[in-house]
Amino acid sequence: MSRFRASAPLTTDWSHFDFTIDGPVATVTLNRPEKLNPLTFESYSDLRDLLAELPHRDGVKVLVIQGEGRGFCGGGDVNEIIGELLKMRAADLMRFTKMTGDVIRAMRECPVPIIVKIQGIAAGAGAVIALAADFRIVGTSGRFAFLFTKVGLSGGDMGAAYLLPRVVGLGRATQLLMLGDTIDATTADRYGLVSELVPDEELDDAVAALAARLASGPTLAFAQTKSLLTRELDMPLSAAIELDAMTQALLMTTDDHAEFHAAFNARRKPEWKGR
Amino acid sequence: MSRFRASAPLTTDWSHFDFTIDGPVATVTLNRPEKLNPLTFESYSDLRDLLAELPHRDGVKVLVIQGEGRGFCGGGDVNEIIGELLKMRAADLMRFTKMTGDVIRAMRECPVPIIVKIQGIAAGAGAVIALAADFRIVGTSGRFAFLFTKVGLSGGDMGAAYLLPRVVGLGRATQLLMLGDTIDATTADRYGLVSELVPDEELDDAVAALAARLASGPTLAFAQTKSLLTRELDMPLSAAIELDAMTQALLMTTDDHAEFHAAFNARRKPEWKGR
Amino acid sequence: MSRFRASAPLTTDWSHFDFTIDGPVATVTLNRPEKLNPLTFESYSDLRDLLAELPHRDGVKVLVIQGEGRGFCGGGDVNEIIGELLKMRAADLMRFTKMTGDVIRAMRECPVPIIVKIQGIAAGAGAVIALAADFRIVGTSGRFAFLFTKVGLSGGDMGAAYLLPRVVGLGRATQLLMLGDTIDATTADRYGLVSELVPDEELDDAVAALAARLASGPTLAFAQTKSLLTRELDMPLSAAIELDAMTQALLMTTDDHAEFHAAFNARRKPEWKGR
Repeated sequence: MSRFRASAPLTTDWSHFDFTIDGPVATVTLNRPEKLNPLTFESYSDLRDLLAELPHRDGVKVLVIQGEGRGFCGGGDVNEIIGELLKMRAADLMRFTKMTGDVIRAMRECPVPIIVKIQGIAAGAGAVIALAADFRIVGTSGRFAFLFTKVGLSGGDMGAAYLLPRVVGLGRATQLLMLGDTIDATTADRYGLVSELVPDEELDDAVAALAARLASGPTLAFAQTKSLLTRELDMPLSAAIELDAMTQALLMTTDDHAEFHAAFNARRKPEWKGR
Repeated sequence: MSRFRASAPLTTDWSHFDFTIDGPVATVTLNRPEKLNPLTFESYSDLRDLLAELPHRDGVKVLVIQGEGRGFCGGGDVNEIIGELLKMRAADLMRFTKMTGDVIRAMRECPVPIIVKIQGIAAGAGAVIALAADFRIVGTSGRFAFLFTKVGLSGGDMGAAYLLPRVVGLGRATQLLMLGDTIDATTADRYGLVSELVPDEELDDAVAALAARLASGPTLAFAQTKSLLTRELDMPLSAAIELDAMTQALLMTTDDHAEFHAAFNARRKPEWKGR
Repeated sequence: MSRFRASAPLTTDWSHFDFTIDGPVATVTLNRPEKLNPLTFESYSDLRDLLAELPHRDGVKVLVIQGEGRGFCGGGDVNEIIGELLKMRAADLMRFTKMTGDVIRAMRECPVPIIVKIQGIAAGAGAVIALAADFRIVGTSGRFAFLFTKVGLSGGDMGAAYLLPRVVGLGRATQLLMLGDTIDATTADRYGLVSELVPDEELDDAVAALAARLASGPTLAFAQTKSLLTRELDMPLSAAIELDAMTQALLMTTDDHAEFHAAFNARRKPEWKGR
């Protein structure tokens, strides 16, 4: 266990989604399929806190976020969230919008790779959660709708106006965030928003295969690659090259790098230890 | 009318292009089709000033920029502009290049969404004006040529070396700006430079439909989405998420957001007021 | 010859690759095809120093980097590099990783346009060198593998976590750098990583044609376009537009710009002088 775990216990029960740990793979399952797995005040809070805890669970090497039923996530529920927001004043509105932003920032800054599984719709906040993941495994039924302007709000919710242009380019991001239209899986794939496009019936297997691969790989190398990808979007070239140089020099001293070399010369597969 | 309109009157006559206002839709029409609608010192000046005034015209909710005839805009005229530039010294050259840059910056910073209609060629400064728009509706005859190096100048004219890599990626931007070659509509679409690709004979209808949609939508939400897309290209992740949070909290107090909720529950279409 | 050449002589012999100058075209040929042209401590050092010298060779207007045989470059050799790195401590590891980063930074900051020719594999550092070039001419046999995590290291080697998202978008860059999988030429082209895709048997001609075109073109315009593309990735919009304005005003005073105007009016091709 990490020497840097402090006194706070890890949460054992998350009330607002299913949470399971199966060996190195943690899975969040949004579990209100009858309402397209809406996000609520409580499930945002739980996601924020889970993402803060997750890096302290030493055995966990990958996080899968998925939704039950015919869609991934329809976003915030119109009455459970919007109805309540309309009664709030500045202080509470800010608390809410900062919390939702905290979820996205935690997803990008969390060292654990995150896979989102998308069947059917990923709408509103559901689309942004998909966007903030490292890998989007999308079934042919998958659809994305950054529909914020359709509810009278800004398309730049929860970091979307930062992230989407960096994934699909400014032109397509403008189209998606200004108009809020739904795009299908093929279009999303053409735009660069899909990591892997598979038939719906192969979706679970594709997610499991990628999770297993990330779980069995060189954990530290994966974590640092993610960290560099996140941070270097905000860095100039020469600083980024310097950060790469220091990171790589450090990783060259790890057991995993030595293990690669030993395995290569012994003509066997490396056994990664993540350190 | 806005409380923040000061004493300066709005210009009623623009001499160097046609300018019409039809309800919420303002239209600039470059009107020298016999020379492919060249930009001149005077039309740049008029565009710069029009873009500064436009946000103060309360009724205007969308700007269309188009050109008469077989092409959108061939860029600066070789003799009317280049011939004159060759006689100028530093102070006037800088005044000219800063003015052209002001047009592009105003397009990106103007809260009014901008649609460019492209039939035939968009070359040189015409290509950069297209690039700086929010939406590029392109007919199948559309072509783009960032041809600056072909006239011995830098490909990074008027912000092109900033904007183009953020729209099509650094590799394709290098190819387009270094070599100055013309690409057709299909290639531009594949690169992400096209918002909507339509047959030429449907171009006017497509522009009118998008203009009507933007005009009837939630104006403030559109304006803030554009502002976030523009500003967050220059912001780090955590600052962008904070800006999104504050923007969204503010928009949650608007009539338009409440109208969405009321309309949703009444099973009718929202009537946006833009406030 | 440039007035700003100091006393240090230009190197006449590069021991760790073939180096030729044919008129305005300089060519680096990695020449150990039996081992897929591996990079070594020595060839990195030579590349770094060559890139520092190259802008001082007045006649050189374009650099081609290529590899002999069936692949472009397999990256660092497992035993010649990794075996040695495993014996090193912090000071030497940093010297090595900073040197490799220096090569990439020099490629991006060098005013001379760089073409990389890719047949077969471009792997590891070979893939990053390809990524840092201005033009990637790729044969149908071409493949890219940013395989760093497969050797237990960070995918963000030598600036890759900065450059790749800016070329192919964050989603695809995450996939390529985290997983380290090989992609073929068609996929790389779809992602925007290919400047020109040609049959292998036409690869040499395509490289020669582009080199000749860059060599005969307006050198200063090309160099400044490259500089703006590199620098404006790290600049905010308004600063970038200002830099464009000053650059363009300066280039408007060059002989090449006047030559374009004269040639246009005389209906002949311009003869570029590069000043």
